[in-house]
Amino acid sequence: MKRVGFIGLGIMGSGMSMNILRAGFPITVWNRTPSKMRPLIEAGASGASSPKEVAERSDVIIDIVTDSPDVEEVILGPNGVIHGARPGSIVVDMSTISPIVTRRIASELEKRGVRMLDAPVSGGDIGAREGTLSIMVGGDEDAFQECLPIFKAMGKTIIYVGDHGMGQMVKLCNQILVGINMLGVAEALMFASKAGVDLERAFTAISGGAASSWQLINNGAKLLKGDLEPGFKVSHYLKDLRLIMEASAEMKLPMLGTGLVYQLFRALDAEGLGEKGTQAIIRVIEKLAGCSLLNEKTKI
Amino acid sequence: MKRVGFIGLGIMGSGMSMNILRAGFPITVWNRTPSKMRPLIEAGASGASSPKEVAERSDVIIDIVTDSPDVEEVILGPNGVIHGARPGSIVVDMSTISPIVTRRIASELEKRGVRMLDAPVSGGDIGAREGTLSIMVGGDEDAFQECLPIFKAMGKTIIYVGDHGMGQMVKLCNQILVGINMLGVAEALMFASKAGVDLERAFTAISGGAASSWQLINNGAKLLKGDLEPGFKVSHYLKDLRLIMEASAEMKLPMLGTGLVYQLFRALDAEGLGEKGTQAIIRVIEKLAGCSLLNEKTKI
Repeated sequence: MKRVGFIGLGIMGSGMSMNILRAGFPITVWNRTPSKMRPLIEAGASGASSPKEVAERSDVIIDIVTDSPDVEEVILGPNGVIHGARPGSIVVDMSTISPIVTRRIASELEKRGVRMLDAPVSGGDIGAREGTLSIMVGGDEDAFQECLPIFKAMGKTIIYVGDHGMGQMVKLCNQILVGINMLGVAEALMFASKAGVDLERAFTAISGGAASSWQLINNGAKLLKGDLEPGFKVSHYLKDLRLIMEASAEMKLPMLGTGLVYQLFRALDAEGLGEKGTQAIIRVIEKLAGCSLLNEKTKI
Repeated sequence: MKRVGFIGLGIMGSGMSMNILRAGFPITVWNRTPSKMRPLIEAGASGASSPKEVAERSDVIIDIVTDSPDVEEVILGPNGVIHGARPGSIVVDMSTISPIVTRRIASELEKRGVRMLDAPVSGGDIGAREGTLSIMVGGDEDAFQECLPIFKAMGKTIIYVGDHGMGQMVKLCNQILVGINMLGVAEALMFASKAGVDLERAFTAISGGAASSWQLINNGAKLLKGDLEPGFKVSHYLKDLRLIMEASAEMKLPMLGTGLVYQLFRALDAEGLGEKGTQAIIRVIEKLAGCSLLNEKTKI
């Protein structure tokens, strides 16, 4: 059974590492803020003093941190994984970061005989806790097969999608839809509200057919209760939008819908609402409309 | 048991009227092109020579035609329903038309003691044939209750949403989501294609989670097969988009996402693709991108 290392014990990482531990893998953890290691260590994990030390004690080293520079730091930095990993080991980055950075890191690791997978996830903190994440994996397919039992401890839909960076690309593809669908929900509900329609009835009428989406069913329902708490934070989504814009610029691909979504989420962040959930995009739609979703009862 | 009249035996109306007939209601039908009445008459319906004559023989007069002027013609025109309907009867317009025109017609009918419901549908020709439509009903609630057994012969989700025009408003709300979600699907798949991702795997990875929608599952799958045949025609959707734009202009409501969708579908129609299904929006995305969804394998 492979020895697993786990770096990054935030909202996602704490649930995911706990599920690996419960599945019976010996696990060594590290987190920048050491106090977050305590629950894992109490449950049977061992703690390390650096990413390098995690790598020294592991066959598969997983990290899930915030952004591209954070991944570069824990993998390639002075106390990074690269200085502890032995040839033949596998680094699995489960963060959502730039596909281009992913390929650069993979190529650095390869020089030391260390293989890399990019394996970003979808499904939020609930999916992380319950082990029901979707995991989209790019990189060497043999390494994927070797890690599959570990992925199965964390997720339900686990799909190998291609070479280095392709896991990230598919995650970004996912995030394009998340944002556009959410914009649709906000615009449609504001239209109904402004028209004076009973929002609950409109929601019931449209949520079973061709207009339906995960965003409508979940975040639309939150909006009807005035609930802007995160699920998925605006500030994190803005990072993903930035990555989409960077990747599409590299590919010289125009993105009219996603470009609009990006600017509207920028406006939302400028309102100081970066810590709310993505459904808070309704605040920008309301500002443009000059009226509130839940109070407007003007008929035409 | 109410005597039903049915005007408009197109793709939708032929299936819907057949289901009313099968449910045991006596039914009188009329269609502008008389040959389309034949299958109904052979199945037991009686044919009329004008909308007026349909109204003379019916308690509830249903119409489903293309656009606002068509509804005005069959209801208020020289041989229209209004000249045959007796006080106490109910007119049910199941077309998708302007909520403002709906209210004007309702007010004309009211002067003769005739009640009106606007009851647009969602679910396509399959839903019409199988009796599984969603029906969103506006107008007098007592009239809605009287017509409920007839609606149940045609649909599965039947929801009273408010006063005259509110059925239309909820239908437009539905159509806002249909278009924005479809744009998201096209843009996300083109992003994946341009990145060189295997589209089938990307589709599998993203279709079960937060990115999921009816449009992705149904029209996205069609795009992966290169299938642009309608489901729902671009030319019909453009009519709905025009109605959304008109209603939102009346309400002084800015619609950034839907406005973009409208212009892109205009471009699609300008390409001569009005008779294709709405998933053909990929052709505009491809034109903007300068490459084809199914052939592009350029990695960045």
